[in-house]
Amino acid sequence: MTEQSPAGNGDRKTLLIGIPKGSLEEATIALFSRAGIRLWGSDRSFWLSSNDVELRPVLLRPQEIPQYVAKGDLDCGLAGLDWILESKCSEDIKLLTDLCYSKRSFRPVRWVLAVPEASKIKNVQDLQQMPYPVRISTELKRVAEDWLSEQGIIADVMFSWGATEAKAPFFADAIIECTETGSSLRANKLRIVDTMIESTTRFFVNKAIYLKNEWKRAKVDGLSLLLASCLKAEGRDSLRFSGDKSMTTVLEDLIPDDSQYTVFEASNGEFTFEVITERSLLKDVIPVLIRNGAKKISVSPLEMMYE
Amino acid sequence: MTEQSPAGNGDRKTLLIGIPKGSLEEATIALFSRAGIRLWGSDRSFWLSSNDVELRPVLLRPQEIPQYVAKGDLDCGLAGLDWILESKCSEDIKLLTDLCYSKRSFRPVRWVLAVPEASKIKNVQDLQQMPYPVRISTELKRVAEDWLSEQGIIADVMFSWGATEAKAPFFADAIIECTETGSSLRANKLRIVDTMIESTTRFFVNKAIYLKNEWKRAKVDGLSLLLASCLKAEGRDSLRFSGDKSMTTVLEDLIPDDSQYTVFEASNGEFTFEVITERSLLKDVIPVLIRNGAKKISVSPLEMMYE
Amino acid sequence: MTEQSPAGNGDRKTLLIGIPKGSLEEATIALFSRAGIRLWGSDRSFWLSSNDVELRPVLLRPQEIPQYVAKGDLDCGLAGLDWILESKCSEDIKLLTDLCYSKRSFRPVRWVLAVPEASKIKNVQDLQQMPYPVRISTELKRVAEDWLSEQGIIADVMFSWGATEAKAPFFADAIIECTETGSSLRANKLRIVDTMIESTTRFFVNKAIYLKNEWKRAKVDGLSLLLASCLKAEGRDSLRFSGDKSMTTVLEDLIPDDSQYTVFEASNGEFTFEVITERSLLKDVIPVLIRNGAKKISVSPLEMMYE
Amino acid sequence: MTEQSPAGNGDRKTLLIGIPKGSLEEATIALFSRAGIRLWGSDRSFWLSSNDVELRPVLLRPQEIPQYVAKGDLDCGLAGLDWILESKCSEDIKLLTDLCYSKRSFRPVRWVLAVPEASKIKNVQDLQQMPYPVRISTELKRVAEDWLSEQGIIADVMFSWGATEAKAPFFADAIIECTETGSSLRANKLRIVDTMIESTTRFFVNKAIYLKNEWKRAKVDGLSLLLASCLKAEGRDSLRFSGDKSMTTVLEDLIPDDSQYTVFEASNGEFTFEVITERSLLKDVIPVLIRNGAKKISVSPLEMMYE
Amino acid sequence: MTEQSPAGNGDRKTLLIGIPKGSLEEATIALFSRAGIRLWGSDRSFWLSSNDVELRPVLLRPQEIPQYVAKGDLDCGLAGLDWILESKCSEDIKLLTDLCYSKRSFRPVRWVLAVPEASKIKNVQDLQQMPYPVRISTELKRVAEDWLSEQGIIADVMFSWGATEAKAPFFADAIIECTETGSSLRANKLRIVDTMIESTTRFFVNKAIYLKNEWKRAKVDGLSLLLASCLKAEGRDSLRFSGDKSMTTVLEDLIPDDSQYTVFEASNGEFTFEVITERSLLKDVIPVLIRNGAKKISVSPLEMMYE
Amino acid sequence: MTEQSPAGNGDRKTLLIGIPKGSLEEATIALFSRAGIRLWGSDRSFWLSSNDVELRPVLLRPQEIPQYVAKGDLDCGLAGLDWILESKCSEDIKLLTDLCYSKRSFRPVRWVLAVPEASKIKNVQDLQQMPYPVRISTELKRVAEDWLSEQGIIADVMFSWGATEAKAPFFADAIIECTETGSSLRANKLRIVDTMIESTTRFFVNKAIYLKNEWKRAKVDGLSLLLASCLKAEGRDSLRFSGDKSMTTVLEDLIPDDSQYTVFEASNGEFTFEVITERSLLKDVIPVLIRNGAKKISVSPLEMMYE
Repeated sequence: MTEQSPAGNGDRKTLLIGIPKGSLEEATIALFSRAGIRLWGSDRSFWLSSNDVELRPVLLRPQEIPQYVAKGDLDCGLAGLDWILESKCSEDIKLLTDLCYSKRSFRPVRWVLAVPEASKIKNVQDLQQMPYPVRISTELKRVAEDWLSEQGIIADVMFSWGATEAKAPFFADAIIECTETGSSLRANKLRIVDTMIESTTRFFVNKAIYLKNEWKRAKVDGLSLLLASCLKAEGRDSLRFSGDKSMTTVLEDLIPDDSQYTVFEASNGEFTFEVITERSLLKDVIPVLIRNGAKKISVSPLEMMYE
Repeated sequence: MTEQSPAGNGDRKTLLIGIPKGSLEEATIALFSRAGIRLWGSDRSFWLSSNDVELRPVLLRPQEIPQYVAKGDLDCGLAGLDWILESKCSEDIKLLTDLCYSKRSFRPVRWVLAVPEASKIKNVQDLQQMPYPVRISTELKRVAEDWLSEQGIIADVMFSWGATEAKAPFFADAIIECTETGSSLRANKLRIVDTMIESTTRFFVNKAIYLKNEWKRAKVDGLSLLLASCLKAEGRDSLRFSGDKSMTTVLEDLIPDDSQYTVFEASNGEFTFEVITERSLLKDVIPVLIRNGAKKISVSPLEMMYE
Repeated sequence: MTEQSPAGNGDRKTLLIGIPKGSLEEATIALFSRAGIRLWGSDRSFWLSSNDVELRPVLLRPQEIPQYVAKGDLDCGLAGLDWILESKCSEDIKLLTDLCYSKRSFRPVRWVLAVPEASKIKNVQDLQQMPYPVRISTELKRVAEDWLSEQGIIADVMFSWGATEAKAPFFADAIIECTETGSSLRANKLRIVDTMIESTTRFFVNKAIYLKNEWKRAKVDGLSLLLASCLKAEGRDSLRFSGDKSMTTVLEDLIPDDSQYTVFEASNGEFTFEVITERSLLKDVIPVLIRNGAKKISVSPLEMMYE
Repeated sequence: MTEQSPAGNGDRKTLLIGIPKGSLEEATIALFSRAGIRLWGSDRSFWLSSNDVELRPVLLRPQEIPQYVAKGDLDCGLAGLDWILESKCSEDIKLLTDLCYSKRSFRPVRWVLAVPEASKIKNVQDLQQMPYPVRISTELKRVAEDWLSEQGIIADVMFSWGATEAKAPFFADAIIECTETGSSLRANKLRIVDTMIESTTRFFVNKAIYLKNEWKRAKVDGLSLLLASCLKAEGRDSLRFSGDKSMTTVLEDLIPDDSQYTVFEASNGEFTFEVITERSLLKDVIPVLIRNGAKKISVSPLEMMYE
Repeated sequence: MTEQSPAGNGDRKTLLIGIPKGSLEEATIALFSRAGIRLWGSDRSFWLSSNDVELRPVLLRPQEIPQYVAKGDLDCGLAGLDWILESKCSEDIKLLTDLCYSKRSFRPVRWVLAVPEASKIKNVQDLQQMPYPVRISTELKRVAEDWLSEQGIIADVMFSWGATEAKAPFFADAIIECTETGSSLRANKLRIVDTMIESTTRFFVNKAIYLKNEWKRAKVDGLSLLLASCLKAEGRDSLRFSGDKSMTTVLEDLIPDDSQYTVFEASNGEFTFEVITERSLLKDVIPVLIRNGAKKISVSPLEMMYE
Repeated sequence: MTEQSPAGNGDRKTLLIGIPKGSLEEATIALFSRAGIRLWGSDRSFWLSSNDVELRPVLLRPQEIPQYVAKGDLDCGLAGLDWILESKCSEDIKLLTDLCYSKRSFRPVRWVLAVPEASKIKNVQDLQQMPYPVRISTELKRVAEDWLSEQGIIADVMFSWGATEAKAPFFADAIIECTETGSSLRANKLRIVDTMIESTTRFFVNKAIYLKNEWKRAKVDGLSLLLASCLKAEGRDSLRFSGDKSMTTVLEDLIPDDSQYTVFEASNGEFTFEVITERSLLKDVIPVLIRNGAKKISVSPLEMMYE
């Protein structure tokens, strides 16, 4: 907790926040930017600058952020659930928002158990069939040990310093590795046997600080709302078009939930329809609108949205 | 043809689409992204991933895409008209949309006949005056041979593996090369003599597939509409401002075509004007609006538009 | 002046404009792009291309632009106030707009007098206490000489060809250097003693041309308005939400100045509120709106705005 | 031939030489440098500079060099045998030296017929078993067509614009591709079926020029000798050691061929042995020498050698 | 141990060797190259190719190599002593040669205890004076824990995932970090308190394999000799000069140890002196030789030497 | 001078030396390395490290080194003669060695007066024919002003901040620019009118320090000798071959100056010839040797040589 933290954070009106360096870095900084919070750094320091003077952001490896938040050296931070679990300090951390994004998509990543294509191992239990403790290479050593142990597997889990996919079959019988699409596993001629965990980016806070410090609680709650609303706007657009009143029926057929559209009467008696919709639906919706006589159709981007 | 294609595409609900690698790659992926279709790849494969599960995109050189579409190995693709012509397979291809963009502008590129500044050649017919078959270096060999032959020129047309502009005058008497602004030709001290063809990016489909497979026809038609609408939005903005009713007259003077603006009465009796207009007109329109008392002027970007 | 300029600019309907190469280059080209004016170049020339055919842009070091504008070789240009002053040609230049941006922020940069942390120099007058003319290294030599001279300091001001911060204490007793955040000075263990000048990017024109050539005066005035409006939109958003009429009171409390919002009645009797606001306020405004029952909250980006 | 070549080479004391751009470029320039001939270029031109004023080197794609040498636009050049064959102009070319190096080794490259690992094709004849003309993708189209035709295979040989290995199995049933170690083929899950040709870098000259122009013949012959001697020195070293006369016997046992060593008597009666040997033998030779009492063992690099 | 190793290495005439990836990689590959053993790789695999067919090299992080050698998955490998100690598997490893090189010099690196310049900590014992277990950040966690424990210090040693120098003072009270010159520590305003260990690159082998497999023992011993002799030649040159016999006295004064020079009488009665000497002595030796009448002085590089 | 220099260099056994950053940097560091003096740096400082503990090297722009040597802030340094002249401090500097190398060759660079190809200016005097003071753009402003003034030319010499070649004809009527081969001038369509100065890299020392400080004088003289001998070895080789005594005559014909070769009689009665020769002569010498029966011909590189 802050009070006892050796580093401490004397200034009660400053929120110390850990930003994940590496694969999530670019996406995280872009997310903050859409929320109106610019973060920028220099080559010489991991302390970032921000246009929000109440924030003190620091760029750290996601492996380290949970432990510093747990100790109270940081007030809050972002990291994948995978590294939160690996750090074994969930007790001192409160998870706030599930920010469902990874390096390049808005889906969770998976840590999977994979074996060489030609391996006889078909499921987790088969790991027991090796004549010696099965050799497993992974960067997520503790989570892997717990998961295997829960299933009664005795294994020699080795910490991998990278290039894990290349370790099998020579240096390991199986690996537990992070994947978004599985394509890198396939390229290394590995076959997925099981999924250990799914992981998304989380925003979390030191539990004691959150309970005791009102200003910080309000600040992280506001930030949490803001970031979530930006993520929600991602991939949605504002669609506007004109038409006569009958277009309402067309629109209701296309988008049954009326909570995201508004109809205005223009000065010339025409109606203007404004709809918040997913961008991926546009390719289906717009041809129907055109066929039904919609005019002045235009699509604009959104930065944030709240339902 | 699809049915007989050795590669085939058994899954009738998947559209195989060729994306042009190289100079058009970045602009093409950006265009799809504005249309809500994200394409991303890995270093290990030319197969791309997409958030549209019905698409199976593959990144290939634009020189190769027409021939694979013609054979039915691909359902459809994008490439410049230049390489479509060079591939000599127009018969099996149906051109859908002229997506008027090139590497960095929204104008066609030109393939021009160019000669060293000091050359005596002033027009195509002068090519005949060389004491030997005129040596012409070009990457678009077949199109060039046809074009020269139509004009009765006997030439030694050599395929150029790049750096064509440097070939003249030593290795060639003239070149036929692609240019957007002519600046690279000028830098190489070449003079343009004539234009062989103009070329823009085209979206095209295998003719037989388009005729026989309804699902694919609907899919490519929808995609065609979507991409065209994104290109149309490029360089246009939504302009909003407030004023009293008399602003209508001002606006009508500025933008005679009323099809792209709408007038709303706000709750306080003021009027709000919403105009879709080209961004390049703003520098002329806005000073007039200000002079006439417009308020709350704001300009927002558009992602797509349909007229 | 133009008429006598050896370079001249015979074409009266073309505006020769100097674009600053280097640290301001990317931000300047992005600003023009938001204003609908695309500038692009080739590796072989400093002349840029533009979609505004009346512009003839040229990419030059900001140190050189003021002198070419003053001579009339260029009609107008952008550069930092620092280099305008250093060029000593303010007499022939008319400053039009203060475009408050620098390499990465929208704040002025400062040229500061800095000394090694351990130095005894605490203020400008202390510079006189060295047993020899104080050695000062700077890239802004003339401005520094004038500034020191005004304060009665006799100094050996040396022009620095870069890496000025490393010059002290070995090769200089103090430096005068440009800084945005001071972090690079701190990393070099330097302490700021005083600020010599603050500098922002300026848009300026040759005085004689501005007086005599009506077409050019109108053109630079329009450009000036356009660029300023884009800068104003930077960091502001359009916020829309729905609610019943009572939301007006909530909004008035949040944003007392009513000049930037409009209220519409939708066809279903609901009201839609449209507010132009700074993005950095959103994190405070939106939670209040939600608490008061606002719906369909969405935030869209702005490209330009005029108050 | 020169006399009739439109480009010509009026200066009889200048040798026009084509240097292969791309994968062989670095190794070729390094080879010339070891031979005392420095070649250097600029970004703006494919004409290189050289410290041998009688050479006029030009950097061209190896695909183009054979045809320019055959026409006499170049006097001589270096390129792989593969592209010499593909250019179909062997008649006008005289091959001088086999410079056995490729991009990164001193072994020939192979162009191999490869198929997907799971393919039923086991040898060239199996290509006939496809229900349609077998689709083969390759960059060496003409050589491939001839080779297949000689073996009675009817095939649809498609020119590949790169990434050939990825073409199978989707766009081709087999590929013919260049490989040094086969590792890239294995990574693409392809299996080698047969070797079409082996290729090394060749130094060649226009046949007519070689016959008629004495100065050029002497120049290319000298150059040929020089380059070959540098290649021969590659991987050999000069080994020196001291010992008494009995070391001669030891040495004779180790290196039976006495043509590469010399024995000197030093002033103190000791003998010094100087041996030219392959570097890869040192790891076996030196332990034996030490065991037999050799002293002052040292190994120096060689730049050139002639046997 | 080999026999039991799951990976095993059935082929008794192949030596599996781990090459350290990262900071030592370039220097290691250069060292092997000087020894006549070329190692090269591809982007797709960590298995390297070699011109010594008896070697099977694999590029792995130095953190991992000791453990794989200890298990017998690798026969031998190179890594820093630091990571050998950290891996805690010294029992199964036999250290062969101390190859005294690091990333850019031929000196050991040091792992030092460092604190912020302003810290009150002056020696290791002062670490006890913190009001809480002193927080220490390091990449060499186990070695650090043992070292501190031996000195009776209770510490909270945290594994650092990089950028350790920036951790103090905020996230750590002290760090234990690797340094060659201390310059990076000074740049981070840290002060060295003590040296934990010195480390150089070591060549080591699996102990059981070395004892039982004669072929492998001979192979690693040969390799060890070869690498050591290349390192010894580093920075030494062969100096040759001519003179009359009296030069012997001059030379004996300069280089008392006669084991590295040889004197020959040339055919014209002149004497030629050949000396193996350190390059750094040349700047002192050569002026003396010149003053004493030496002629034809030349200096040649050495690749290997054995004393 | 040192004594009075504010920076001073208290340690009399340390030589402060300025190493030119930029175009000469790589060649300079390579030259020192051949001389046995390794210089290496970090990104954070311009102070370099060296294995010669008596040297304290600092990497500075060559424009600045002469002035710091003249003031005594540095003891000595390397820079082009061009920047030594521009700095106007020749009086306080003693030139030691002409190290004839530039960025990529071992020839002087030239600063030439160049004009657009189409310009009427044919010689320096023609500069007077412009109707206004001729506009000249150059980075070597002071040298240019002096040179023009000596020839009676009144000119407007403008300091150019780079890309000088592009300044003409628009921003300048002529330029004075540095060139090695003239190719960049030709690419910019400029014609050389005259040569202002030739410049090579010089090693120079503060005059007062050289006179008064014996240790430093000896140190710079030794360094000067060492660097010169390395440059002399550049492009020369040691050629060895065997033959009978008659080869002496052959050799005397080829290389009349006998000062660089030695003949030894081997134990088997054969003679071994050792010749120091320029590498560029080898292509002529070796074929003659072969024709005359020379055997065991080998060529080895030299690192240094003294005649």
